[in-house]
Amino acid sequence: MHLSFADARQLAIDVLQSHGMPADHAGIVADHLVDAAGAGHAFAGLPRVMALVQHMADHPPGQPITITERTANSAVINGGGNNGYVTSLIGIDKAIELARKSGVGVVGIKETWFSGRLAYYVERAARAGFVALHTASTQARVAPAGGIDRVFGTNPVAFAFPCDPDPLVIDFGTGMTTWGNVLLRQKLGQPLDEGSAVDAMGNPTLDPAAALTGAFLPWGGHRGYGLALVVQVLAIMAGGKMVAEEVTDSGFFFLVIDPNLLGAADDFRAQVGALVAHIESSRPAPGTEKVRVPGRGSLAKRAKAQAAGTIEVDQAVYDTLVALRHGPKN
Amino acid sequence: MHLSFADARQLAIDVLQSHGMPADHAGIVADHLVDAAGAGHAFAGLPRVMALVQHMADHPPGQPITITERTANSAVINGGGNNGYVTSLIGIDKAIELARKSGVGVVGIKETWFSGRLAYYVERAARAGFVALHTASTQARVAPAGGIDRVFGTNPVAFAFPCDPDPLVIDFGTGMTTWGNVLLRQKLGQPLDEGSAVDAMGNPTLDPAAALTGAFLPWGGHRGYGLALVVQVLAIMAGGKMVAEEVTDSGFFFLVIDPNLLGAADDFRAQVGALVAHIESSRPAPGTEKVRVPGRGSLAKRAKAQAAGTIEVDQAVYDTLVALRHGPKN
Repeated sequence: MHLSFADARQLAIDVLQSHGMPADHAGIVADHLVDAAGAGHAFAGLPRVMALVQHMADHPPGQPITITERTANSAVINGGGNNGYVTSLIGIDKAIELARKSGVGVVGIKETWFSGRLAYYVERAARAGFVALHTASTQARVAPAGGIDRVFGTNPVAFAFPCDPDPLVIDFGTGMTTWGNVLLRQKLGQPLDEGSAVDAMGNPTLDPAAALTGAFLPWGGHRGYGLALVVQVLAIMAGGKMVAEEVTDSGFFFLVIDPNLLGAADDFRAQVGALVAHIESSRPAPGTEKVRVPGRGSLAKRAKAQAAGTIEVDQAVYDTLVALRHGPKN
Repeated sequence: MHLSFADARQLAIDVLQSHGMPADHAGIVADHLVDAAGAGHAFAGLPRVMALVQHMADHPPGQPITITERTANSAVINGGGNNGYVTSLIGIDKAIELARKSGVGVVGIKETWFSGRLAYYVERAARAGFVALHTASTQARVAPAGGIDRVFGTNPVAFAFPCDPDPLVIDFGTGMTTWGNVLLRQKLGQPLDEGSAVDAMGNPTLDPAAALTGAFLPWGGHRGYGLALVVQVLAIMAGGKMVAEEVTDSGFFFLVIDPNLLGAADDFRAQVGALVAHIESSRPAPGTEKVRVPGRGSLAKRAKAQAAGTIEVDQAVYDTLVALRHGPKN
């Protein structure tokens, strides 16, 4: 079914608020979810409301979020157990503010959990004219290359650069698969892709249930493992735990740079646009229609959804949310 | 054969100087090459002297290197056509100096070429107590995923973090192979690995000669392509060309961060060490002896070479360098 952006947003807000989330937080989360749905990331849209409700039911309410500026270039944020959609929005805005004043902003967030699509935050910085790098450690589910124990989360990385008409946004996880994808395969009775995971004994498995008790493998062998390790160490610097046993052990790292630090920002923006155009007009491989630039597909889908004014929502998800609209059953 | 570090260094200096490299530059290059050889990267050691001599023969001499501090956090360096071993050492030291004063240092270098192992520079920053990120665009040889035209270099990335007893250093290229490796396979009459390259028409090839006129493929599909693109854009911000047709079109980007920006640097250093130990003591996969941490193998080899006082040098390379010791033949 289709819902208008406004109706989808209000439904998310109603459910989140009726389950205890403060109104301002619920608005921030809902903005993110309808943006993700519009960009074609259905799983990162309204279905996340159910996961947020479940988390709130299982955990004490969030404490006040504290922001401490440590230097002209840096701030640390204690998320007080609040969700990452809220803390990361505060984090990227603080990093942008620091970069605007001082050229570079470095922000770390701890005591927070799950923030949705990292692209959302770095795109915001790039639209403000800045270069952004953002990484997040997540709950430990991924083994190092050559290992079978859970050490890393699926540890995503995201970069964004100013570019016209839209920022260049590059984001990806460093695991072969994600928790959500494995749960989905399990529900659908489908096997995992080859090389995605090991069982609890460390043997390769295609069985989602076995993977959920074992570990996922890092994407891209030793190089992807190296990148997962970088994300983990940046998370430690940001205040996260060495290994994130619990979701709230995450560490979120934000770096925002004013491109004027090294040259004229307008020239840089123009050259990034020229590179995007150069890649898109380069020769595709046999059997490929056109060379694609990362993030461009999501932006095009979102533009189309915004023009139509609606997002697609799974009927079962809609029904569940409507039933949750008036708060927890007693 | 084996040479002492001192003899190998002096041989490199003699050859480079007799072919026109200033004495101070030759010393910087030689330090890097014997370090690489000691760390087990034979190809990045003394054989590079021949490539440097060839480049000097084909190009006008370097102009003075200029360093311009643009802000309290940033500097741009015009390499004046000098090699990257020299300019990158200046670049990392300037970034460290800025980070020491201002918490963060961002440095871009243009008009330079080939800098050897990126690990060398970031390790230097980490030994000084800083976190470092360094990327370099190199001559265009790698196609975007789904494409067949050369857009990116093999665009390496490197990260380093303070850690005892040695920094944690993570560095890798973003192409499926390197120019040097393809040349080596050609010389040895060996085919390339599957999926490494396409020929000039864009068809997959295992033939090194065909790959040299075609394009290499990015490592890790769309995610590796995304990272190659990030390196290219950071290079543009650093002053490099949109696409590096010539080696001197490279852009080198350095970011050095004082970990005190977000917390106590000593705690951070201790936690990085604890994570390294945690990974090394985690369960290895069946058939794997021990889980390895990136960069640890190179450090161990270098320590062993330093204890022995010697590096291994190919006899043919040695003979060639001795013959070149007294300058170009006329």
